Amino acid sequence: MENKKFEIRNLKGTFDFLPEKQYVRNQIIDTLKKNFEEYGYLPLETPILNEFDLLKYKYSEGAEILHEVYRLTDQGKRDIGLRYDLTVPFCKVIALNKDLTMPFRRYEIGRVFRDGPVKAGRTREFYQCDVDVVGVDGRFIEIEQMQMVAKSFKELGIDIVIKWNNRKLMTGILEYFGFKVEQFDAVISLIDRLEKISRKELLDEFVKFGLNEEKVNNLLDLFAISLKDYKALAEASVIANLKEGVSECLEIESYIQKLNLQNVCEFSPTLARGLGIYTGTVFEFFDKEKRITSSLGGGGRYNKIITNFMDNGQEYPACGLSFGLEPIYYILSQKVAPSFVDVLIIPMGTEIDSLKIAESLRNAGVKTVVELSGRKVKKAFDYANKQKIKYVMVVGENEINSALYSLKNMETGEQVSLPLEKVLEVLSK
Amino acid sequence: MENKKFEIRNLKGTFDFLPEKQYVRNQIIDTLKKNFEEYGYLPLETPILNEFDLLKYKYSEGAEILHEVYRLTDQGKRDIGLRYDLTVPFCKVIALNKDLTMPFRRYEIGRVFRDGPVKAGRTREFYQCDVDVVGVDGRFIEIEQMQMVAKSFKELGIDIVIKWNNRKLMTGILEYFGFKVEQFDAVISLIDRLEKISRKELLDEFVKFGLNEEKVNNLLDLFAISLKDYKALAEASVIANLKEGVSECLEIESYIQKLNLQNVCEFSPTLARGLGIYTGTVFEFFDKEKRITSSLGGGGRYNKIITNFMDNGQEYPACGLSFGLEPIYYILSQKVAPSFVDVLIIPMGTEIDSLKIAESLRNAGVKTVVELSGRKVKKAFDYANKQKIKYVMVVGENEINSALYSLKNMETGEQVSLPLEKVLEVLSK
Repeated sequence: MENKKFEIRNLKGTFDFLPEKQYVRNQIIDTLKKNFEEYGYLPLETPILNEFDLLKYKYSEGAEILHEVYRLTDQGKRDIGLRYDLTVPFCKVIALNKDLTMPFRRYEIGRVFRDGPVKAGRTREFYQCDVDVVGVDGRFIEIEQMQMVAKSFKELGIDIVIKWNNRKLMTGILEYFGFKVEQFDAVISLIDRLEKISRKELLDEFVKFGLNEEKVNNLLDLFAISLKDYKALAEASVIANLKEGVSECLEIESYIQKLNLQNVCEFSPTLARGLGIYTGTVFEFFDKEKRITSSLGGGGRYNKIITNFMDNGQEYPACGLSFGLEPIYYILSQKVAPSFVDVLIIPMGTEIDSLKIAESLRNAGVKTVVELSGRKVKKAFDYANKQKIKYVMVVGENEINSALYSLKNMETGEQVSLPLEKVLEVLSK
Repeated sequence: MENKKFEIRNLKGTFDFLPEKQYVRNQIIDTLKKNFEEYGYLPLETPILNEFDLLKYKYSEGAEILHEVYRLTDQGKRDIGLRYDLTVPFCKVIALNKDLTMPFRRYEIGRVFRDGPVKAGRTREFYQCDVDVVGVDGRFIEIEQMQMVAKSFKELGIDIVIKWNNRKLMTGILEYFGFKVEQFDAVISLIDRLEKISRKELLDEFVKFGLNEEKVNNLLDLFAISLKDYKALAEASVIANLKEGVSECLEIESYIQKLNLQNVCEFSPTLARGLGIYTGTVFEFFDKEKRITSSLGGGGRYNKIITNFMDNGQEYPACGLSFGLEPIYYILSQKVAPSFVDVLIIPMGTEIDSLKIAESLRNAGVKTVVELSGRKVKKAFDYANKQKIKYVMVVGENEINSALYSLKNMETGEQVSLPLEKVLEVLSK
């Protein structure tokens, strides 16, 4: 079992998070969790291991993602995949629990796995923080979710812009322009990449659809007009998707104004947000300072997935969104963690008494380390400095006998002698 | 991609945790986390995906566990295993981060995976809650960890017994009895199972070691005497392990008395806690009410693993323990979750105003659901009842215009009309 040549290292695309980093990640997760619960979403947890058949079952994102699924076989020869998102498990839970009270609002924060490209803010094992509700249609819940995104990032201290659009509008424009249904997915995915590819590449791609430069320009112009212009376009048209899409957009736009979200939200007619999942409003949020250019998350309405998944004749309108922990952490990773420990107790041959004192402090929630390695006092003080521990208490026989403890503030150098209840008062602050 | 015959289900040995259950699990995790931090342990997070070579590298638990490792290959043909515990990743982190300040105390709470037998409190994908310190030898830190176990379970509301023993003592007894070193592991694993197998089975097994019934009885007698008797035995012997083991046990026993842990701790000379990992004190904790008979966790001193792992001539004494979330959850699973939501707002055509009111409440931390599905008021009240939501606020034009909101207490039926700041006061309680 020995293997001298093996080099200890992390697998490509996976990372350890040491305490200073994990502190920041925990803070992000706690903030999101708090917001999710304030919006009435309930905690749910699903397994990472899934039957591979479930992962590919009726999910409309397309087979492409299945190439990135980590797949394995257990001792019982079961065909297993690691979950690659939290939406499939959510659909599964709805399907397996027929007695859930609707609307059902849940959040799940957990790791997902994708055997794909590794880059800034993108790893192979990463956290998604998902919030979804099934059983409510309409724009109100969509705007409420956008409101939740705004509130969450305000508390995280990140200025964001929420770009939003509507899939019906996008489809309507394509119909209006004369594309065939079977071309929609390909054209939408091109338009979604508008900002990422060059004009030349774009033209080359559109040649495949039989478009010359003039037509491409016309198409692009059509994706760069205002909501007001779309309204005029829709009024003069008979295309249902265009009419519905515009109407839904106008509704969202009016709520944005009323809820004072106009500084955060930005109508973006080219935003597609992936392929066929979404059926109405879609949105993605970005760092305003562009410290990372990929999105920090996104979501929208998807009325078909769960409906198809259930396949029982009932409709299951749903909408939800996902916060990406990794890109958010990427932005906040420079944050400095405070000291994890409130006080270091250094016993001078009084270890057991010190453990009793420590217990009183810990019972009051004070984070306490007792120096138990038997090293010299000076070394213990060095440790306190390195770990940025604010207070140090040296406990010898005198302190035990007098019940007066000398508490040293390592930042100011000040030292006071106090009875235990006063020590507690200082440390509980 | 469609497969009509596929049945939606969870993989064997994996489970979903719906909100009422997840609430209890989160409470357990939060309680443990709080205690770990009060004892000065820092948060660490490591990947689930690992190079398979790492999982098998120099780990002394033996190759047996490797049969239960989920193993897979990625697109880059890497040989990968899912972590089966949090100790190997801990050792890896120590090895990869040479500049860690010692002693290094960390906790990690996370999922591990074992393709093994499924039973009560034991699943294939489960949580371990691990606390370890590297860089401190001696009994003080061991008793401090036992103290932490006692405090944690007190806060969890579970009466436990911590059974403890010492590996040197156990080895010393075997030497004293005349077993050969190469027999130790097998004999220890038999003794560890004493309470689980019948007398007959035991005798049959010991025949393999050349022991007749009388000798087996002598051996068992030797594992059923008091610490005082071991002391006498050690004093009359030259076996180093016996002497050291007894001395360490007496030290632990005296600290147990001084720290008032005698009602929780129980010296158990047959406790082995697995195979070759441990080098001194070992302990396991059990539910006193025996609602589950397997342990709720355990730990002990292991001075060799990290030392071997590092292989740089330095010693890395370590001790730590693991709480099993699944058996603890098994005991507490009957706990009833309180309502997740503080108030349901039912808008009467005032959705956007209601979203504004909700925002004020949420900014004050009130968990608020706004009824946005457009269903009838009666149905919304039914929903509040089902979800045990304590307060309901119906918001119509009158309420908006008067700025007085009627708040109904669903438990008492009482209804009051209040301005928003008073509503906030009631709901923040």
